[in-house]
Amino acid sequence: MKAVVVGGGAAGMTAASRIRRLQPTWRVEVYEETPYVSHAPCGIPYFVEGLVRDKDELITYSPEFFRKKRKIEVFTNSKVLKIDHKAKKLTVLNSGREREVSYDKLIIATGAKPFIPNPKWLEVEKVFTIRHIEDGVSIRKRISKDKEVVVVGAGYIGIELSEALRKLGKRVTLVEAMDQIMPMFDKEVALDIEEYMSKRGVKIRKGEKVVDISQRRNGVLVETEKGSYKADSVILAIGVKPNVDLALMAGARRGETGAIYVDDRMWTGVEDLYAAGDNVEVLNLVTGRRSYMPLAPLANKEGFVAGDNVAGGSLRFPGAVGSAITKFYSLEIGITGISEANARKLGFKVKSVYISHSSKAHYYPGSKWIKVKLVVEEGSKRVLGGQIIGLEGVWGRISALAIAIQNEVKVSDLFFADIPYAPPFSPVLDPLIVAARVAR
Amino acid sequence: MKAVVVGGGAAGMTAASRIRRLQPTWRVEVYEETPYVSHAPCGIPYFVEGLVRDKDELITYSPEFFRKKRKIEVFTNSKVLKIDHKAKKLTVLNSGREREVSYDKLIIATGAKPFIPNPKWLEVEKVFTIRHIEDGVSIRKRISKDKEVVVVGAGYIGIELSEALRKLGKRVTLVEAMDQIMPMFDKEVALDIEEYMSKRGVKIRKGEKVVDISQRRNGVLVETEKGSYKADSVILAIGVKPNVDLALMAGARRGETGAIYVDDRMWTGVEDLYAAGDNVEVLNLVTGRRSYMPLAPLANKEGFVAGDNVAGGSLRFPGAVGSAITKFYSLEIGITGISEANARKLGFKVKSVYISHSSKAHYYPGSKWIKVKLVVEEGSKRVLGGQIIGLEGVWGRISALAIAIQNEVKVSDLFFADIPYAPPFSPVLDPLIVAARVAR
Repeated sequence: MKAVVVGGGAAGMTAASRIRRLQPTWRVEVYEETPYVSHAPCGIPYFVEGLVRDKDELITYSPEFFRKKRKIEVFTNSKVLKIDHKAKKLTVLNSGREREVSYDKLIIATGAKPFIPNPKWLEVEKVFTIRHIEDGVSIRKRISKDKEVVVVGAGYIGIELSEALRKLGKRVTLVEAMDQIMPMFDKEVALDIEEYMSKRGVKIRKGEKVVDISQRRNGVLVETEKGSYKADSVILAIGVKPNVDLALMAGARRGETGAIYVDDRMWTGVEDLYAAGDNVEVLNLVTGRRSYMPLAPLANKEGFVAGDNVAGGSLRFPGAVGSAITKFYSLEIGITGISEANARKLGFKVKSVYISHSSKAHYYPGSKWIKVKLVVEEGSKRVLGGQIIGLEGVWGRISALAIAIQNEVKVSDLFFADIPYAPPFSPVLDPLIVAARVAR
Repeated sequence: MKAVVVGGGAAGMTAASRIRRLQPTWRVEVYEETPYVSHAPCGIPYFVEGLVRDKDELITYSPEFFRKKRKIEVFTNSKVLKIDHKAKKLTVLNSGREREVSYDKLIIATGAKPFIPNPKWLEVEKVFTIRHIEDGVSIRKRISKDKEVVVVGAGYIGIELSEALRKLGKRVTLVEAMDQIMPMFDKEVALDIEEYMSKRGVKIRKGEKVVDISQRRNGVLVETEKGSYKADSVILAIGVKPNVDLALMAGARRGETGAIYVDDRMWTGVEDLYAAGDNVEVLNLVTGRRSYMPLAPLANKEGFVAGDNVAGGSLRFPGAVGSAITKFYSLEIGITGISEANARKLGFKVKSVYISHSSKAHYYPGSKWIKVKLVVEEGSKRVLGGQIIGLEGVWGRISALAIAIQNEVKVSDLFFADIPYAPPFSPVLDPLIVAARVAR
């Protein structure tokens, strides 16, 4: 039996490893377009900053590791051009040569690619996207002497890049088409983030959609609906969209989000064809709808489930609530579930609270500010989402809240969440508990 | 209508505040034996260390605050001597004078007191207990020139005191009767904690029950079953037991743990008589049994529930899983649910894992070690408990796990917990998730 995985990122390599684990005698092959597998795109902003010095540090395991330790045949620099799923054959391009590869079972884990409103912008010198390790290498090398950088897109990557660029001493203009930064957050939270970023020297231009990016004599000109910005370089971080072409070619279909549809076994509905990672949509446990969540931990788990089912297991991916976190300098920024604005758009009746508190007991030195927003469904009192920002302690509180939301906890029960207390770690009534008490 | 609360700690003041909130016209009185209300005993080790400079910092709100802002009559230095619940009368001693106080509804929130195997030990000069703010003041003043201190009891307070004393430059011997330190933890975790503490100069003597403490010419002699230790001063931190006398006098009864029995409304079963805080037992959601958990956040919530019900509300305290955390220097130490040893003692069939991981993405600078133990019930696969130690990130992971345990999450679902990821905060597969995967 032979299982083939297309794409060697988090989902693909986890899937391949799971198959190997359950089926020691199968042949398992992975085809990856870039020179790397098991890479960590989330680390690229920290590589650009120089905090991660060597690009190789961003590779969790080398192709050699998989070949030798896990007996997985990894083919890098190998682009899959065609899939004939009826004949169970791939056409692979490597070093200018095409070859055919047969398989019994196929997992498509082709991930996502940056959303580019106009492909011509990328022809302009020193306009970058940021997705692959090479993008990071290229940016770090080519912007080193730049003074003025425009970042387009104020989502997670845009914010992480802004920090990296400020730390490198660049002047940074962050341009966002929506009327707030971090559009997955509610406006009042986004404003707090914006205020913090502005104080640290990021020029934020929101509500300005980029209409053109063009080469000028001394750099690049970014034109928006409202103004124009001259820069030495421009980085596009507008978001990603799923790489669906190969999966569609194999016979999979798109779901309502535009990403590949899979069931909770990561099965596309086509025999022996599975998909996992940033190219698929998953069930959003808060909304009950299918949702596109291109997040690394989910990709990993989806890969695990896909591999498990391909290899004869019966693991099911229950869905996710959409937890994410980032930071800008010392400001930690986290979200789980859905925002109030999103909830209302989806027809939920909600109330919300947004409270300020401190991260430790008031008398313990070094306590920091932290703010918690809770979104609660009226009637059912179910917690639908939370947004937390602050100078410490955000990750843990988002994690706790994520598990509460995943278990459909009511806000009155969240008040009774038995989270631990000691003065160096939290106030006796934790910010989460206080928010729940207010929102009851 | 008049509600009286006996005891002005976390439970008592929260109860009084809740009554005031729901019943603006009632008279609400609090009787407190010490000069302080709303104090934070958990902060005392940090006061001893000098990290908290002024004892007043350990008072969250003053009696004045409650009188003026919340219209709660607070009587400090007022010891309740007698309760005649049939007549609805208390006898209170203040400044040498006794007076009678009538009430309609009574909440007993008398907390806990240090467990002292032999009261004569306290007659020895420079043998201290640690419970009240005055204890901290006295210890800080009177040990300042001491070189050698014995701490008896290697639980949370014993460990926090050991850190404080080491930081003050004392030689510290920590004596524990059980054959491990931190007896609520499993042995292998306790050994890791012990190793860390030993490296930082705490002499640990476990399996040594103290048989006598006596005055000698140049200090105090602590004699155990196995040896004897000379010290300039001795601090007893053997644990606490519930202050039940007044509640019993009023007609309440003890539960199976020896603490006061209350139902989920904090009602003792006697009309108009409630109890809350470190004097009561609560439902352990893991074991289904009643359990004694003298922990500040629970006391707060129990007080809130007691006050709510006294004032006509209908809030119910669902029980707790017993989450706690502390630290020793940089080592964070947390637990939630029950240990493997405890689970086996109670007749659960369990398996467990104890994994090592890192607190951040491997390539992100400053990643620290962290170890996670999970205890899982065989068959049901329910997570019964977790113990986490490490140099960062313990609080958040214990919080997340606590909520999972409270919601009876199976270990296979814990693997799918949607906790957020970014390189500065966690590895892409968090230690919790890895532990769940291994324990599946």
